[in-house]
Amino acid sequence: MKSLTKELWMNVPKRRAIISIHGEVEQLVRESGVQDGLALINAMHITASVFINDNESGLHQDYEEWLEELAPFDPSPERYQHNRTGEDNADAHHKRQIMGREVIVAITGGKLHLGPWEHIFYYEFDGGRKKRVLVKIIGD
Amino acid sequence: MKSLTKELWMNVPKRRAIISIHGEVEQLVRESGVQDGLALINAMHITASVFINDNESGLHQDYEEWLEELAPFDPSPERYQHNRTGEDNADAHHKRQIMGREVIVAITGGKLHLGPWEHIFYYEFDGGRKKRVLVKIIGD
Amino acid sequence: MKSLTKELWMNVPKRRAIISIHGEVEQLVRESGVQDGLALINAMHITASVFINDNESGLHQDYEEWLEELAPFDPSPERYQHNRTGEDNADAHHKRQIMGREVIVAITGGKLHLGPWEHIFYYEFDGGRKKRVLVKIIGD
Repeated sequence: MKSLTKELWMNVPKRRAIISIHGEVEQLVRESGVQDGLALINAMHITASVFINDNESGLHQDYEEWLEELAPFDPSPERYQHNRTGEDNADAHHKRQIMGREVIVAITGGKLHLGPWEHIFYYEFDGGRKKRVLVKIIGD
Repeated sequence: MKSLTKELWMNVPKRRAIISIHGEVEQLVRESGVQDGLALINAMHITASVFINDNESGLHQDYEEWLEELAPFDPSPERYQHNRTGEDNADAHHKRQIMGREVIVAITGGKLHLGPWEHIFYYEFDGGRKKRVLVKIIGD
Repeated sequence: MKSLTKELWMNVPKRRAIISIHGEVEQLVRESGVQDGLALINAMHITASVFINDNESGLHQDYEEWLEELAPFDPSPERYQHNRTGEDNADAHHKRQIMGREVIVAITGGKLHLGPWEHIFYYEFDGGRKKRVLVKIIGD
């Protein structure tokens, strides 16, 4: 069994942003030499997501508004008990559950085995500090 | 390491539907000869989901209504910026995030290792065209 | 390829609870002898989740209230068709979709490869009976 392990460092200056990590993951699959296997791509932080969807800026703006409706930012200690700890990011812990922690992508013939519009993104919900995404590839 | 890779083609005439793919996945596990490993089952399109839940039609109808509340269908360009591109399926990209892109199921003793009520489904949110589900099995 | 398969039995007396299974999963990774691979941790029941987030009781209370807003408990047959079958747990099938069925965690150097605050939990949405979590570890 071959494997490759790589942490990608992210530094998002704004509080929230959707960032393509697709090309970096493709490159790591090539480096791994794995022809047939699985790639795990996961946020290593609990106020961020890795997800697969459309590379279309209008949709990304729609996600921003939708997640804000489902789990509004509110730094006060009234809405979220988590924010009584001195944190202001309870909403980020909620948004991340909707968008997910990780994706698993098949590798076939040495490449990511994806549909035509599948694109891998990192979603930052509480930026302004360094965070990591883990890429773990296993296979033959 | 053994592996099996198979794309299942789906063609849902209606806009939305929940379709069992459980039997097909079971059959592919048998074909793979894998006794101990993992099966990845994922939608290859970004307006569809693969999920595991109850094979009960009332619950499926409940999901339909619930997802429509959380992310209503609205082809106009007002609610969703994505629909300014000429698409009308922004709601489908949202619903798919709630229900998920993929499931990973363990294989033990040559069979899917599932609880008594776990059943694998494809969820189409923007039908009327051909789409694919990927099954990737790896193990010994 | 090495592997380890273990079902963890859960018995939550209350209807809902968030329970750490982090230490048990760490122990199973040690037992497996796997240095480099993947760990799948999934609920074997369709009214429960396995998820990774913060080990902070205020946040867990926030999740309780948030999920109750998104998918309220209602045993009557009016809101949820599923509850016309004699069940009262349709809400639990919905909540589990938000929080997810499973997590996949990389194993590197014989240990779970996690960020500093990542903690593995079981989330029971319909307790009062015995349920299982599956841990499946594969790798070298």
